[in-house]
Amino acid sequence: MRSASLSMALFLLISLLSFSLSSSSGEAGLRFPRYDGKERVLDIDAENWKRIVKESPMLCLLYHDSPGSGNTAQKQFHLTELTLEMVAQVLDGRGITFGLVDAKKDKKVAKKLGLKETGSMYIFKEDHLIEFDGELSAHVITEFLLDLMDDPVEFLTGEAELRAIYALDDVSRVIGYFKNVDSEHYKAFEDAARDFQPHIPFYATIDKATAKKLSMKLNDVQFHEPFTDHPVNMADKPHTEDEIVHFVKEHRRATLRKLRPEDMYETWEDDIDGIHIVAFAEEDDPDGYEFLSILKDVAQANTDNPDLSIIWIDPDDFPLMISFWEKTFGIDLFRPQIGVVNVTDVGLLGSFRKRTFHEGKKLDDLQWKHRVKTGWTLTA
Amino acid sequence: MRSASLSMALFLLISLLSFSLSSSSGEAGLRFPRYDGKERVLDIDAENWKRIVKESPMLCLLYHDSPGSGNTAQKQFHLTELTLEMVAQVLDGRGITFGLVDAKKDKKVAKKLGLKETGSMYIFKEDHLIEFDGELSAHVITEFLLDLMDDPVEFLTGEAELRAIYALDDVSRVIGYFKNVDSEHYKAFEDAARDFQPHIPFYATIDKATAKKLSMKLNDVQFHEPFTDHPVNMADKPHTEDEIVHFVKEHRRATLRKLRPEDMYETWEDDIDGIHIVAFAEEDDPDGYEFLSILKDVAQANTDNPDLSIIWIDPDDFPLMISFWEKTFGIDLFRPQIGVVNVTDVGLLGSFRKRTFHEGKKLDDLQWKHRVKTGWTLTA
Repeated sequence: MRSASLSMALFLLISLLSFSLSSSSGEAGLRFPRYDGKERVLDIDAENWKRIVKESPMLCLLYHDSPGSGNTAQKQFHLTELTLEMVAQVLDGRGITFGLVDAKKDKKVAKKLGLKETGSMYIFKEDHLIEFDGELSAHVITEFLLDLMDDPVEFLTGEAELRAIYALDDVSRVIGYFKNVDSEHYKAFEDAARDFQPHIPFYATIDKATAKKLSMKLNDVQFHEPFTDHPVNMADKPHTEDEIVHFVKEHRRATLRKLRPEDMYETWEDDIDGIHIVAFAEEDDPDGYEFLSILKDVAQANTDNPDLSIIWIDPDDFPLMISFWEKTFGIDLFRPQIGVVNVTDVGLLGSFRKRTFHEGKKLDDLQWKHRVKTGWTLTA
Repeated sequence: MRSASLSMALFLLISLLSFSLSSSSGEAGLRFPRYDGKERVLDIDAENWKRIVKESPMLCLLYHDSPGSGNTAQKQFHLTELTLEMVAQVLDGRGITFGLVDAKKDKKVAKKLGLKETGSMYIFKEDHLIEFDGELSAHVITEFLLDLMDDPVEFLTGEAELRAIYALDDVSRVIGYFKNVDSEHYKAFEDAARDFQPHIPFYATIDKATAKKLSMKLNDVQFHEPFTDHPVNMADKPHTEDEIVHFVKEHRRATLRKLRPEDMYETWEDDIDGIHIVAFAEEDDPDGYEFLSILKDVAQANTDNPDLSIIWIDPDDFPLMISFWEKTFGIDLFRPQIGVVNVTDVGLLGSFRKRTFHEGKKLDDLQWKHRVKTGWTLTA
């Protein structure tokens, strides 16, 4: 152990020393990658698609609208290409093939591959087809693909690791307790995990003491909804892969969801009759933090209402969208804001601003308490 | 109040309905901005710089190396230009002028403007010159500039807002308690805040009960170091702007700092004799979370050691750097890692891997306990 550590330290030192020789800027170890100009992204067409699919252990295809011939459209498409080239460059050597599929020129290929929505990226990995329906930036795509290459299930042992699960309360999580990793029930759980990777993290424990702290019995599977303290247990264990997949799909849409760059379009389109309650709040801001804690109480109190969808947007996660939202909704995002977004139905649903909180009022004193929609009585 | 809310709701509804007419994709309200092809970034030169400085309420200049004539260098520079154009586009209408200063062609202009480090962006705002020394991505630059346009001091009232200050424990924070916003001592505090905006958030309270919860007396100024529970109080109040600036600079370098995209180079270059302890840990991962809590204990226990600098890097914040770090340091970033980075000195400093924790050992059982450098005895 010790000698391994020592050689590791030596290695670190050597690589850094060689860095210091070539860098006088003091930024050794921190060189942000720059585009190297090499073309790695393939143009997929009727001629090459079969061979590329066959030869690629992991294939990542951006299905895009045909750019057209206008100058602006060409520039936009060029920027999209560069973004994908940058991703391909930083993930070089990890066995991923990248390609572009044009919705007009390669319509037939897209159909054969099962690509449906332009602007989405489709990842073919083993027997799974994963759709990326998020922000098309190099940062977000790269993180998504790296998460997809990680193990589908993380193991939990001990109290410190359990605290992590509770700290990570802004996403859905699934936890299972199994005898060991060779158990057929664990295998079913792991297979189910692959269907949701990287959107929903799956955790497993094979440690009795850890399971006890989670109040779990052998082969139990729990779903933890974001922002709520009480997990839902699956009935009638042990479970098959299909049963677990069905269970997760059923509970997936939480009362309160945080909009994430990696699946923002998917979350947004998953509305209730065209309606979301949308709350803008910066968690790093005292105003926003306070507002958010009230929102969490509301979600917790209304967790059993299947007709309610609240989306929390932290503007810090979407700096490029801020001006757009401010203009579209006529609001100031330096302050927390809440409103009801309805794209299909006509009817006044209510809205208020954070300012109200400064007057010491509680959420249930406000318009929230009135029935904004049949079945939507919100009290904190 | 109510009628204001109602009209706000109506406005929301109207703008969204008009959206739904023009969009059939269900993505109304969530259109990620695309580059519109318009050129907004100016080329600063000996002819125009004086006029531009004079006419711009806020001026944002990227000081860059001359790209040279090679194909790759041209492509790289083009991508940098596009990044800045994207920032200029999404911040259009906010009164910011953007420009490029070439380190070779416009050497004299750069000198006159006080631009020193290529790769940095310099922002001229009122009487302040702010250096951006972070990741040159549209996302990071935009967030930085928006933070710079926010109020320099946030006000704190009530317990819920105080909880936010404690939750935000990964950055340095400064808090002051003043009689009211017209107090000359508050004005001095506000002026000092502008010197650190947006790097270090400043908070103030004018509420007696809130101040009491912070154990603060009138005109007290506190510095909260990241990851530690005990703030440092400034002695000999009340304080002038200069005294506050001096105090913050003195305490600015914390024992444990999180590397942030918005000032990564600045943090990295602020080493101790060329040395940092660098820890990679994903906070969202149970392994990483556990590792990080040990690291926080270490930092807390060693907070008075001025010769110690620990940098925590959450790989999730730097997806584009992961492959580079894995190759440079020969490590696997799917797991937590720690090492000592030394760019100027020769000497074995010790390093270990997360694996050790699985064996139930405590930090002080490990190599950490040995003296890695004079004065560096680390115990948790």
